[in-house]
Amino acid sequence: MSKTIKKIGVLTSGGDSPGMNAAIRSVVRTCAYHNIECIGIYRGYQGMIEGDFKEMGPRSVNNIINKGGTILKSARSKEFMTEEGRKKAHSNLSAAGVEALVVIGGDGSFTGGLVFNKEYDFPIIGIPGTIDNDIYGTTHTLGYDTALNTVVEVIDKIRDTASSHNRLFFVEVMGRDAGHIALNAGIGAGAEEILIPEEDLGLDRLLESLRKSKLSGKSSSIVVIAEGDKIGKNVFELKDYVEENMPEYDVRVSVLGHMQRGGAPSCFDRVLASRLGVKAVESILDGKSNYMVGLLNDKIELTPLEQAIKGHSQIDRELLRVSDIMTT
Amino acid sequence: MSKTIKKIGVLTSGGDSPGMNAAIRSVVRTCAYHNIECIGIYRGYQGMIEGDFKEMGPRSVNNIINKGGTILKSARSKEFMTEEGRKKAHSNLSAAGVEALVVIGGDGSFTGGLVFNKEYDFPIIGIPGTIDNDIYGTTHTLGYDTALNTVVEVIDKIRDTASSHNRLFFVEVMGRDAGHIALNAGIGAGAEEILIPEEDLGLDRLLESLRKSKLSGKSSSIVVIAEGDKIGKNVFELKDYVEENMPEYDVRVSVLGHMQRGGAPSCFDRVLASRLGVKAVESILDGKSNYMVGLLNDKIELTPLEQAIKGHSQIDRELLRVSDIMTT
Amino acid sequence: MSKTIKKIGVLTSGGDSPGMNAAIRSVVRTCAYHNIECIGIYRGYQGMIEGDFKEMGPRSVNNIINKGGTILKSARSKEFMTEEGRKKAHSNLSAAGVEALVVIGGDGSFTGGLVFNKEYDFPIIGIPGTIDNDIYGTTHTLGYDTALNTVVEVIDKIRDTASSHNRLFFVEVMGRDAGHIALNAGIGAGAEEILIPEEDLGLDRLLESLRKSKLSGKSSSIVVIAEGDKIGKNVFELKDYVEENMPEYDVRVSVLGHMQRGGAPSCFDRVLASRLGVKAVESILDGKSNYMVGLLNDKIELTPLEQAIKGHSQIDRELLRVSDIMTT
Amino acid sequence: MSKTIKKIGVLTSGGDSPGMNAAIRSVVRTCAYHNIECIGIYRGYQGMIEGDFKEMGPRSVNNIINKGGTILKSARSKEFMTEEGRKKAHSNLSAAGVEALVVIGGDGSFTGGLVFNKEYDFPIIGIPGTIDNDIYGTTHTLGYDTALNTVVEVIDKIRDTASSHNRLFFVEVMGRDAGHIALNAGIGAGAEEILIPEEDLGLDRLLESLRKSKLSGKSSSIVVIAEGDKIGKNVFELKDYVEENMPEYDVRVSVLGHMQRGGAPSCFDRVLASRLGVKAVESILDGKSNYMVGLLNDKIELTPLEQAIKGHSQIDRELLRVSDIMTT
Repeated sequence: MSKTIKKIGVLTSGGDSPGMNAAIRSVVRTCAYHNIECIGIYRGYQGMIEGDFKEMGPRSVNNIINKGGTILKSARSKEFMTEEGRKKAHSNLSAAGVEALVVIGGDGSFTGGLVFNKEYDFPIIGIPGTIDNDIYGTTHTLGYDTALNTVVEVIDKIRDTASSHNRLFFVEVMGRDAGHIALNAGIGAGAEEILIPEEDLGLDRLLESLRKSKLSGKSSSIVVIAEGDKIGKNVFELKDYVEENMPEYDVRVSVLGHMQRGGAPSCFDRVLASRLGVKAVESILDGKSNYMVGLLNDKIELTPLEQAIKGHSQIDRELLRVSDIMTT
Repeated sequence: MSKTIKKIGVLTSGGDSPGMNAAIRSVVRTCAYHNIECIGIYRGYQGMIEGDFKEMGPRSVNNIINKGGTILKSARSKEFMTEEGRKKAHSNLSAAGVEALVVIGGDGSFTGGLVFNKEYDFPIIGIPGTIDNDIYGTTHTLGYDTALNTVVEVIDKIRDTASSHNRLFFVEVMGRDAGHIALNAGIGAGAEEILIPEEDLGLDRLLESLRKSKLSGKSSSIVVIAEGDKIGKNVFELKDYVEENMPEYDVRVSVLGHMQRGGAPSCFDRVLASRLGVKAVESILDGKSNYMVGLLNDKIELTPLEQAIKGHSQIDRELLRVSDIMTT
Repeated sequence: MSKTIKKIGVLTSGGDSPGMNAAIRSVVRTCAYHNIECIGIYRGYQGMIEGDFKEMGPRSVNNIINKGGTILKSARSKEFMTEEGRKKAHSNLSAAGVEALVVIGGDGSFTGGLVFNKEYDFPIIGIPGTIDNDIYGTTHTLGYDTALNTVVEVIDKIRDTASSHNRLFFVEVMGRDAGHIALNAGIGAGAEEILIPEEDLGLDRLLESLRKSKLSGKSSSIVVIAEGDKIGKNVFELKDYVEENMPEYDVRVSVLGHMQRGGAPSCFDRVLASRLGVKAVESILDGKSNYMVGLLNDKIELTPLEQAIKGHSQIDRELLRVSDIMTT
Repeated sequence: MSKTIKKIGVLTSGGDSPGMNAAIRSVVRTCAYHNIECIGIYRGYQGMIEGDFKEMGPRSVNNIINKGGTILKSARSKEFMTEEGRKKAHSNLSAAGVEALVVIGGDGSFTGGLVFNKEYDFPIIGIPGTIDNDIYGTTHTLGYDTALNTVVEVIDKIRDTASSHNRLFFVEVMGRDAGHIALNAGIGAGAEEILIPEEDLGLDRLLESLRKSKLSGKSSSIVVIAEGDKIGKNVFELKDYVEENMPEYDVRVSVLGHMQRGGAPSCFDRVLASRLGVKAVESILDGKSNYMVGLLNDKIELTPLEQAIKGHSQIDRELLRVSDIMTT
């Protein structure tokens, strides 16, 4: 029965991440491989509502595997949160003959997809695309590995100047709800301390840790801070606090910001995107719906979308201990 | 009993790989964390024979986490293959009070370590450091992820010129016995065909595949070839063969060579190195010997060294299929 | 009179180089700025013969300033060497209303342009695009600066592994007639010796230099060799020769090849391309013909095409001395 | 007379910049080449006051040509601004037998050197090391070219996400007094508008320019802003102002900060550093004092230090026009 699907739509939604283009390419070519038509939907759910569609053959995705961003563009759509908006979207899909959707995005995008699925019984498969790695059901979201490399490369540069001047740097990285980037890039960059949303280090322990670092003979220090850390001060307030309490330190702040979302994807993200795209399309052809494809124990597996949304991707507590030992 | 170990030696051996320095740093700092002395042994087993040792405190490994190569240098030692050589090595270790060894290297290095262990009952823990990813007991060897990124970045550049001239490129990458680099970097770089030691594509299928690629409207083609592929011709002979049989192609060859071993390690390799180093030292303190530490299902696990050496790290057959679909 | 020109064609020809796209973008947008139409000609002179043209508005060149290769493709055209071919080309240009040409390429491309100009009195302005920097009338050709960075980055990686193993590497870089890349990248990469077409170091002096390097306590050595060096042996023969005469050395060879032509252009090449494109179009509007635009003393200047072709871009002899001092 | 100099000191001072290590290496090796002793002075003038010196032979600068930062460290010294401080410094230099100084830094560092020279008639040669390119007497300061590449690479990444979301980004780059980085990197990154200290664009023209850009069909816009721009609002106030006046825009801000000072130097900066170091030492040996070595018309030339300090490095006005045309 499910084999009768003849046309699949693909869209990217939410914050873009490196590897989204590689995933689009994979979805498009897997469709071509199975002689299914593929429709690219521009600007996420908003483009669905506006009927901003384009047929995509296998050559339309040449030379995009290594490009950051998303050729299908992304947008947040308030209109899709209304019944009216979703009705328009559905009617556009029907008119275009699209029978199933691959949604590349984060949990907000999946939530929208789930609502749509429930209203219209429309088959949806999600591909986790976000640099934050905060989705349950996959050890790696698309773009996360690339973002880690971007962050450590930038901190390597900051370390050059920190070492030359014996300075302390606070580097803020992305991660409102999850400390994956801060924790892994912090270890990778040899940070002296790491602040993440998952635990509140506390101001006292931060000062203590910086004193220890100074005493141990280190000439410079980097503290990596996730946006959503729980220390109770933003990064600029933190600078003031530390300078007040440790006048021997000349603190500099660097907020990495949006550059973390861009850039050519790493090989890991390109291969992962290729695998996820194949699995997403073939799951649809197998009659599956409301699943997310993800990487678990180095295999591509399905997780129910609801679980992916409600679950929480835990940080690896072992890494906190590794980070601690590394600052000896 | 095992807790009485007070001094650990660390060495790098065989071909160097990015992440070796990060692993040395981790071993040194984990020793310091546990109040164990750490001795760096230069130039692998050869330095062991020559007593080329140096005490390493936690500050001696500052600012090396992001450096390619190995500050302890590496060498192949013929002398260590002799009983005489190993005797000298053991006597140097004894004189220096070294009671256990962490060996960072590939299967050749582990084999040497195993022989040494059997003769002198000397505790050894291996850390898999090689770009080839050809070691059983870990899904990723140190340096493999970095090498993949190096290769796709170079092929991205070659693709620029290939596309501009509608050319066919044969790109030879490392991998005498294992096609991991070729297969993954080939998919990551969007290669039209991939030749690996694990299977013989055959000359006819190569030509057929290139014809298909041409017919599909692709303006350029990249074929990624592992050193140890089984097609029966070296890369330059292959160029001649293809040009004879498909005169419409102007084939260029690029042999990537040693650059694949160098460069700043990726964040993945830095974090992996940090985790492996901690586990290696703590396994010794737990009384373990003759194990390799490795990454299995995203956890650091022990595998008996003998198994690591004799086993074979299989390529992921699913990736062959993904590669096939991607060239649609 | 010259102000009556209403349509300009632009093409890329010969080997591609980073910055060609930035130059195309600049030509297209400068045309738009002056309300001139711009026609892109695909695949160089061959596309001119085949009438492979496309109108290019300012938005057609969005997001290409940072892309390697050339979106107009390049090709070598035997047909354009014939009168018949050039006749077809001229008739296509006339039919399309193209009244002047901007040719982005090397001296081969300029020579073709000059012949065409003489036969048809067709206004031509050249933009020097080649990584070799071998064109008279500009201190920098487009792509040269990028290629230098590519080469030093690769040699930095090779240095990692060379240092780890105390090895000697021969690295062959592009440059059949000119040693600019080898000389500058050699100094930039800290090479112990540099072989260029402009002077024959001689086998004896090479050996002597390597001995000196060994004696001075260097643990590894890199020799950078231009393709067109005059030492009388290719790089593999040279390896054999040195290993025979200095058995203490284990020599490795790396031929960098086509990757040197690709990659995102450096900021220098992007700015230079932007400046050259403006000057090329405005020179045509000023009634100029048969000139090359180039960078001289940090200003964009015109050089007669004939002079650019016949002249020879000299290496800076001072650099040979700097290189010598640096290997102290 | 001047030939009697037997020992030269070298220091880095002020903000660090990529290429400082390459310059140190060049000074050290040029000294060795001429059989002069070389003394490294740590932490700039402060280390001079504290006698923090180290003899540097040619092997002490192995493998630093490609490292960012400065192995001699840098610091700002208030003490050196006092007579007392300079007296200590001079007495330390005398005790160590140092007879001349090479000062690598910006105009603040040169001013300090000049005062010292006047008080003690101590020969000083300056090497311009700062990313800002704001020194008279050289078309390029050390680190400037590298910083430009760092900035365009980061903006390339930001462009990925800007294009995917049709957003407007304000990117603040370094340059308190000089717009060289903003102007060149802005053109290189294809910025829609560039704000520099050298001219006040005005808020109205900025809005007009953004409207024009929107109308022209551009899907995203990048505005590059030098720290010291004259528009009268800081980058965050500017965001608010634009969002108020152009509610169709969702503006994001990125302040690049200190990463611009770090990283491996470009080939250009490495070669320039090598040339400047040779000339600095040989100028001392020629009896010169109180000069800065710089690049003028592709040659290394001397400029009196006073002139270098008082003069002002002008931006190239032609580039403003090129930038304007490029945004057509």
